[in-house]
Amino acid sequence: MITTRIYNFSSGPAVLPLPVLEEVQRDLLALPGVGMSILEISHRSKAFEDIIRRAEADLRRLAHIPDNYAVLFLQGGASLQFSMVPMNLLTPGTTADYVVTGSWTQKAAKEARRVGKVNVAATTEADGFSRIPRQDELTLTPGAAYVHITSNNTIEGTEWRVLPEVGDVPLVSDASSNIFSRPIDVRRHGLIYAGAQKNLGPAGATVVIIRTDLIERASSDLHTMLSYKVHAENGSLYNTPPVFAVYITGLVARWTLAQGGVASMARANERKAAALYAEIDRSGFYRGTAQPASRSLMNVTFRLQSEDLEQRFIKEATAEGLDGLTGHRSVGGMRASIYNAFPEEGVDALIHFMREFERRNG
Amino acid sequence: MITTRIYNFSSGPAVLPLPVLEEVQRDLLALPGVGMSILEISHRSKAFEDIIRRAEADLRRLAHIPDNYAVLFLQGGASLQFSMVPMNLLTPGTTADYVVTGSWTQKAAKEARRVGKVNVAATTEADGFSRIPRQDELTLTPGAAYVHITSNNTIEGTEWRVLPEVGDVPLVSDASSNIFSRPIDVRRHGLIYAGAQKNLGPAGATVVIIRTDLIERASSDLHTMLSYKVHAENGSLYNTPPVFAVYITGLVARWTLAQGGVASMARANERKAAALYAEIDRSGFYRGTAQPASRSLMNVTFRLQSEDLEQRFIKEATAEGLDGLTGHRSVGGMRASIYNAFPEEGVDALIHFMREFERRNG
Repeated sequence: MITTRIYNFSSGPAVLPLPVLEEVQRDLLALPGVGMSILEISHRSKAFEDIIRRAEADLRRLAHIPDNYAVLFLQGGASLQFSMVPMNLLTPGTTADYVVTGSWTQKAAKEARRVGKVNVAATTEADGFSRIPRQDELTLTPGAAYVHITSNNTIEGTEWRVLPEVGDVPLVSDASSNIFSRPIDVRRHGLIYAGAQKNLGPAGATVVIIRTDLIERASSDLHTMLSYKVHAENGSLYNTPPVFAVYITGLVARWTLAQGGVASMARANERKAAALYAEIDRSGFYRGTAQPASRSLMNVTFRLQSEDLEQRFIKEATAEGLDGLTGHRSVGGMRASIYNAFPEEGVDALIHFMREFERRNG
Repeated sequence: MITTRIYNFSSGPAVLPLPVLEEVQRDLLALPGVGMSILEISHRSKAFEDIIRRAEADLRRLAHIPDNYAVLFLQGGASLQFSMVPMNLLTPGTTADYVVTGSWTQKAAKEARRVGKVNVAATTEADGFSRIPRQDELTLTPGAAYVHITSNNTIEGTEWRVLPEVGDVPLVSDASSNIFSRPIDVRRHGLIYAGAQKNLGPAGATVVIIRTDLIERASSDLHTMLSYKVHAENGSLYNTPPVFAVYITGLVARWTLAQGGVASMARANERKAAALYAEIDRSGFYRGTAQPASRSLMNVTFRLQSEDLEQRFIKEATAEGLDGLTGHRSVGGMRASIYNAFPEEGVDALIHFMREFERRNG
C-alpha cells in the first residue's frame, strides 16, 4: 500500500509526528502484551491505567508542572472550557477579566457572561486584532476571579510573547494552539487549557492544568461532568475518557521529550517561523497581517494584492502537495500553521513555492 | 509483528469488528486519495465532510431513522447526556419521569434534579435492580417533559425487551449498551443517546438521535456547547468534533450493514445469549442474577457459590484468553459482555471453559 503523505499546513486537527503514527499503526490490532486494540481496552484496565498515568507524567516532565497542579484529560475541546472555566471559577459576586485578542477570546467571554460579570480588560478589535495589547493598556479588576487570555490566536496569527502581569489574580490561558511550542512557566498560571488537536495529539481530548486550590472553588451544585473537582478526584476516570486520544497524546509527549523537550521545540519553531516571515517581508509581494511584535510562531498569516491572486496561490500550492493554506473564512488570505510536528522541510518547500509564485506573478 | 488477539468480554470500551480494525490500520498513515492520516485532517476538509455525512447516512439506514430526527455526533459520553437531556428538555414548570432500573438511571436522575422536577415513575431497587418494571408499575406524570429509561443496564444485566407505553410524552432512552443490537423503532422515541464505546465504535464519540421539534425546546441562555440546537444547526461541526471516533463509528455502521443490518445482529445476539444463559441454567452450579424475563442479551451476569470460587473462575479464564469477565465492582460476580462485534466462537470458548471449570470444582 503506497501512502503518499503531503505537507499539511492545517490549523488543527494538524500534522502529527510520523514516528507516532507508525507506532499507532503497528500496534493497532493488539497492544503488545495486551492482546486487544487500544480501541477496545477497558478504561479500568491495568493497561490503560499505565497509559494515562505515563501520559500525565510525560506532560509534567515536558512543562515542569509542579505537584500543586492537577493534569486532567477531558472532552469537548476548548469550546467546552469556555463554559467550564467560569462555571468553576467565576463565583457569585466576583468579576472575570478577559483580554480580547480575537475570535476565540470573544467566544470564551460570551460563555463567561452567562455565568457572571465579565470585564473586558483590553481589546485590540479596533486594530483588527492584528496585535496583542501592551501591559499599560490592560484595565485589570482588583481581586478579579481570574484573568483570561488566549495565548495564541490561531485565526489572527498573533501570540503573547510575554505573559501579562496580573499580580495575585489567577491567570487562565487558552493555550490550545501554542502549548509546549516553547518553555512555559506553569507557576504563573492558575489554569491552562488546550484542545489536543494542534500540538498535543488528535481531536477528542482536552488537557487542563489547574492549580489545586482553584479546584476547590467549584460549587457542589455544578453538574457532575462539568466539575473540575469531580474529574480531579477521579484521576480523569470519573466516566469513560477518550482512551485513544489520551494514548496518542501520551505518545506525542514522549516524542517531544525524545526531541529534546520544549526548549528544542522552541528553537525549531523559531527557525521555521523566522524563515517564513523573512520570505513574507523580503520583497513586498506578500504582506503579513499581524504586527511584527505580535507575530505568532505557530500560525503565519499573510495576504497578496488581490483575492484572485490568493485563490490562485492556494490552488497551485495544493496541487504541489502544500495543503491547508486557506486562511480562516473570517479573515481571508493565507495561513501556514507550523506546529511542533510540522517538519522544517515543509517550510522550505513553501518558501520555494512562494518564490516561484512571485516570479510568475510579481 | 505477531498480534495475538484474545476474547474481550469487557463491558465497554469493548471489542470492535476485526475488519474495521484492519482497515483503520491499513489507512492510518494516509487516507487513500487524501495524503494525510485521519488523525491529522481538518474537520472542515472535504474528506472529513464526506466521512461524517456517510456515517450519518449509514446510521440512518441501519435504524430507519426518519427525516424529522437529527443525528448528532457529540463528546462527553452518556454521562454528559445525563445533564444535556434535562438542560435542553426539562423546561421550567414541567416534570421529567425517570424509570430507575440501575446505577446509570440513578446517575441520570441525579443530574436532572439539578435542572428541575423529577418523578421516579418506578424503581426496582427493592429487587436489587434484578428486573425491569412492568407497565402497570409505572406512575407516569400526565404531560411530563419526557420519560427517561435506560434501555439496557450494563451493570445489572437487565434489558427492556419491550418499550414502555408513554402516550404522547417523548420517550428518552439511554441506549449506550444495546443500540443497534436489534431493530429499534425510532419513531417511538423523542431522543436516543448512546456512548459509542459498546456497539458503535471507540470511546470518545456520543451519538444523539433527536426529534427535530424537541431541538427547539432549548433556551437560548444555554451554554453553547450544551445546546442540541447549536450542534444540530451546525451539523455536529460547531467546534472540532472527535474526528477519529466519528470515522470509526462510520466504519462500524458500514460493517453492521454489510452483516445484514440490525435484524441479522439480533439473530446472532439471540443465539449468543441463549447459548450462554442455557449453560448458566443447566446444572445450578452457576446462577444468573437477572430475572429471566428481564435478562440482557448484551451483558450476561452470573455468580458462583462463593467469592473465592468467583475469583478463581476469573483468574483461570483470563489465563485462557477470556478477558474482562469481572462483574462491576458494585455488584460483584461475573459479567460477559457480548456486543454486536463479539464473535460466536468467543461465546463457545467461554461455555467450554465454564463446563471444564464446573467439572473441576463442582
